[in-house]
Amino acid sequence: MKKTKIIAFSGSLRAASFNTFAIKAAQQLAPAGCEIELINYADLPLYNQDEADVETPALLLAIAEKVRAADGILFATPEYNYSLPGALKNLIDWLSRQAPQPLAGKPTAIISASMGMLGGARVQYHLRQILVCLDVHVLNKPEIMIGQAHEKFDAQGQLLDETTNTLIATQMQALCAFSQQLD
Amino acid sequence: MKKTKIIAFSGSLRAASFNTFAIKAAQQLAPAGCEIELINYADLPLYNQDEADVETPALLLAIAEKVRAADGILFATPEYNYSLPGALKNLIDWLSRQAPQPLAGKPTAIISASMGMLGGARVQYHLRQILVCLDVHVLNKPEIMIGQAHEKFDAQGQLLDETTNTLIATQMQALCAFSQQLD
Amino acid sequence: MKKTKIIAFSGSLRAASFNTFAIKAAQQLAPAGCEIELINYADLPLYNQDEADVETPALLLAIAEKVRAADGILFATPEYNYSLPGALKNLIDWLSRQAPQPLAGKPTAIISASMGMLGGARVQYHLRQILVCLDVHVLNKPEIMIGQAHEKFDAQGQLLDETTNTLIATQMQALCAFSQQLD
Amino acid sequence: MKKTKIIAFSGSLRAASFNTFAIKAAQQLAPAGCEIELINYADLPLYNQDEADVETPALLLAIAEKVRAADGILFATPEYNYSLPGALKNLIDWLSRQAPQPLAGKPTAIISASMGMLGGARVQYHLRQILVCLDVHVLNKPEIMIGQAHEKFDAQGQLLDETTNTLIATQMQALCAFSQQLD
Repeated sequence: MKKTKIIAFSGSLRAASFNTFAIKAAQQLAPAGCEIELINYADLPLYNQDEADVETPALLLAIAEKVRAADGILFATPEYNYSLPGALKNLIDWLSRQAPQPLAGKPTAIISASMGMLGGARVQYHLRQILVCLDVHVLNKPEIMIGQAHEKFDAQGQLLDETTNTLIATQMQALCAFSQQLD
Repeated sequence: MKKTKIIAFSGSLRAASFNTFAIKAAQQLAPAGCEIELINYADLPLYNQDEADVETPALLLAIAEKVRAADGILFATPEYNYSLPGALKNLIDWLSRQAPQPLAGKPTAIISASMGMLGGARVQYHLRQILVCLDVHVLNKPEIMIGQAHEKFDAQGQLLDETTNTLIATQMQALCAFSQQLD
Repeated sequence: MKKTKIIAFSGSLRAASFNTFAIKAAQQLAPAGCEIELINYADLPLYNQDEADVETPALLLAIAEKVRAADGILFATPEYNYSLPGALKNLIDWLSRQAPQPLAGKPTAIISASMGMLGGARVQYHLRQILVCLDVHVLNKPEIMIGQAHEKFDAQGQLLDETTNTLIATQMQALCAFSQQLD
Repeated sequence: MKKTKIIAFSGSLRAASFNTFAIKAAQQLAPAGCEIELINYADLPLYNQDEADVETPALLLAIAEKVRAADGILFATPEYNYSLPGALKNLIDWLSRQAPQPLAGKPTAIISASMGMLGGARVQYHLRQILVCLDVHVLNKPEIMIGQAHEKFDAQGQLLDETTNTLIATQMQALCAFSQQLD
């Protein structure tokens, strides 16, 4: 099977984020030949066009390069106030101003995890609308919303829930297949 | 007429932001007794719960206090990638974690301005969904979407467009009346 | 306490609809002086402006009159394909073309019930966006999403779940209070 | 070039609908080998599961069969109250209950036309959310929102606007290419 390189972003900057844990689960569950790299963007400044016109942060340039080189993208994000965390949207805003726009045409999967019952149902559709703007190809299925996340991961961040396990494995397989279909 | 204190946030951090200009227009057009204060939040860090658990920025505490004391809120925001600028969402995320939650119950108006034709139609409904979460009372009408904003303000940021002028005056009057109705 | 008249619409036309059951629960749980009337609109034709220009159905005229006379509105709706049932949207489209527009300014509450876990999280925000257009004042809280509805009602449609019971009672009280505040 | 069969639905039941006109323009502008068939669904009843369990309308069965056989779908729809016309949603609700689900996996394009300035910006994102549920592959670009539609078509429904002409030709080409890529 062809090697597939996925770049992953967690919507939460917490060290013990359930969404970062979900990305780590995806790294373990991805099919052979599919490598998932988790990218840290916590040090980006708030996007301000006045400053961006003068200088783009080196960190952003490095992230943009990695995204351009990737075969696919994985977003795992909590829902903050029924939408994306500002920090994740800030990353997307920064990326969207780079040329060539790094996310354009990328096959992409979305996971959301939260402690509530809904597991982030609302944030996923906001993120999908944003990604239409950026011409990103988002997988339809399986949609993964991990509700009551604190009961599904152990203290070390290991995913214990069998159903979620299967869903993530299926989604990673679908992402790799989608990437090859769109290639 | 009772004095009404409105706190305003611009979704753009640019010095010459059309949305900041729209807030300045609102300051001039507000009815007698209605004072609108524009708040700068550009120096907030990205929200990270790990750090927030240790220390809340003094700037955020000051903003939260102003919001709590206000009779109403005005958001004027561009649309970045079909949604809120990350910086504005980051402010809202920070505010939402303060207790008592500062925005709860506040009468609120939304303006969006952009250089395109749509004037930010999409960002307004994302912002409205977010504000449901925070129990904010958002005015229904008039909805103000300032398309082709570069043709409606002069180089000094003065609003030239008569229709938009009337809309903002009407909205500020409606916001003050709504504030007194909900009082 | 002032008498409050609420008009209720169920988004499902099924005889044994969980959402119709939820409206019946609301009738029992509403505060003294608050009367909730469930309206049947199953016999409306699909809205077609060509035909509407010739003749408005008598059923629609009767519903519009009841809505205009009401102190508030209650929508209880399933989620069909992540949005409103076509039948409920068709009713709203018909109402929106009447003058004076019957829903304008009405205090309104939303319930959604479904057999899945999410209980209709997605349909509520589509309905809220639609109601902005029609200048409807929708309650922010409590939001009521009745997941796994088949476990919460008995075969006769009686609501068994204590938590949901309390939520509906609270929402009906809030709707009556909101109605008097906006009066 | 391979023959591509597209099934098109207009969201408006009006005889002189701008959206139906847009579909007719697409028929003329489609690349060689791409045939677009406009389907009339005005005679479907409102979906009611109780009745659907007894009998599915022959009209719906015929439409479902055509959709299953199609290489792609085109929706052209007005915005009614910031969302889909109830009639179009009713069609989608009916289709979604057929097995195998006819829309699953279909490459799809969206056009919206309206007399206002926005051209249906809001309805497109509601429709996209619905189509995620149904596993439909919606084209990202070009997005076509035909504002001030009454100035862009003549009395016979012929599209006069050069920009819109080019957009529709481009979208139809993209839809055919997308269909072959996903095949």
